[in-house]
Amino acid sequence: MLPSPSEPSELSQPGQPTPQRRSEKSHRAILDAAMELCVEHGYGKVTVEAIASRAGVSKKTIYRWWPTKGAVLLEAVIELAGTTTGFPDTGDIAEDLHTQMTAVLDNVMTGPHATVYAGIIAETQHDATLADALRTQLLDPRIAAARARLLQAREHGHLAPGTDLTMLVDLLYGPLYYRLLLHLAPYSHARVRTHIDHVLRIFAPTPASP
Amino acid sequence: MLPSPSEPSELSQPGQPTPQRRSEKSHRAILDAAMELCVEHGYGKVTVEAIASRAGVSKKTIYRWWPTKGAVLLEAVIELAGTTTGFPDTGDIAEDLHTQMTAVLDNVMTGPHATVYAGIIAETQHDATLADALRTQLLDPRIAAARARLLQAREHGHLAPGTDLTMLVDLLYGPLYYRLLLHLAPYSHARVRTHIDHVLRIFAPTPASP
Repeated sequence: MLPSPSEPSELSQPGQPTPQRRSEKSHRAILDAAMELCVEHGYGKVTVEAIASRAGVSKKTIYRWWPTKGAVLLEAVIELAGTTTGFPDTGDIAEDLHTQMTAVLDNVMTGPHATVYAGIIAETQHDATLADALRTQLLDPRIAAARARLLQAREHGHLAPGTDLTMLVDLLYGPLYYRLLLHLAPYSHARVRTHIDHVLRIFAPTPASP
Repeated sequence: MLPSPSEPSELSQPGQPTPQRRSEKSHRAILDAAMELCVEHGYGKVTVEAIASRAGVSKKTIYRWWPTKGAVLLEAVIELAGTTTGFPDTGDIAEDLHTQMTAVLDNVMTGPHATVYAGIIAETQHDATLADALRTQLLDPRIAAARARLLQAREHGHLAPGTDLTMLVDLLYGPLYYRLLLHLAPYSHARVRTHIDHVLRIFAPTPASP
């Protein structure tokens, strides 16, 4: 019996390509090609055809896995953001926010990938499916992680008891997106620290009464 | 001698069309047609051809005045924002911010025009000329007006002496754009008030020492 294409075969020799290995290799090549082309030419100028050509696959292969160019690039950006924007927990909420927010800035909001992320957000204004994917695959899980870390800080008395977590998240992340999408200079790491200090001042716990 | 097309003729009869009046009428018809079509079909689906057809002019007429569809719609949005987003000065900074910010929300960030404004911002991610126009014609003058009003509040002792006006503007407006462009629910008028109260708390003047 032939091995199923979706399962690794125990019979295959090490290094010998299986359908699954070929598929993984194509998947990887498409994500890399898409990101490279966007960095080189700008998000708006990249076509699915160009991605296919650079990755050495057919357009049909791309459309088997993703509905649009935007969906390919969203997966590439999620991958880029995924490993570096988790919420650390050192017990110091200001420090942990600084670690997470500067990682977000460095990875997807400044440098060569900023225009890719901005390009995806732009495309979501006209593509409801991509807007849903951006929300459910990228933003919502990260907003949930931020809220969980902030809730813990509130429970440990590092934020005032009544702290409005939705407003806190809006105030922390809103200005980063505003500056990215309205073409204003992004915050430096030092400016992120000042920004966090300002925002946390609103929600500072009042000292316990004697 | 015939009147110049760019100057009103003193010889023309009242109600009689002159080249200038025809030109003004076309200009108006193009802006109205562009906005109507975007509201009806979504920014992404509107073409210069469709705008020309609805306005009863040629595509050439549109391109004589604007380089792109985005530029037409930017003018329409500026017109919409222009009359209602000035900064009032009642002496109460929280109240004046609420008046101005709810006007911005009502006119260009919620309701039928929100997708037009979001569509323009989206287009600026790929169109550097439009990005420049957005900054110089719409955003920069309004940021300057906000800073002028906030500076006055600082000078009158309604904000702390060291208030960082750039950060204050980022914190006030950042969350509105974040919510618009990342498809989160916009603030209600009541929520705008809470938001302003939170932000102004950071920059509250400390009571004078006895």
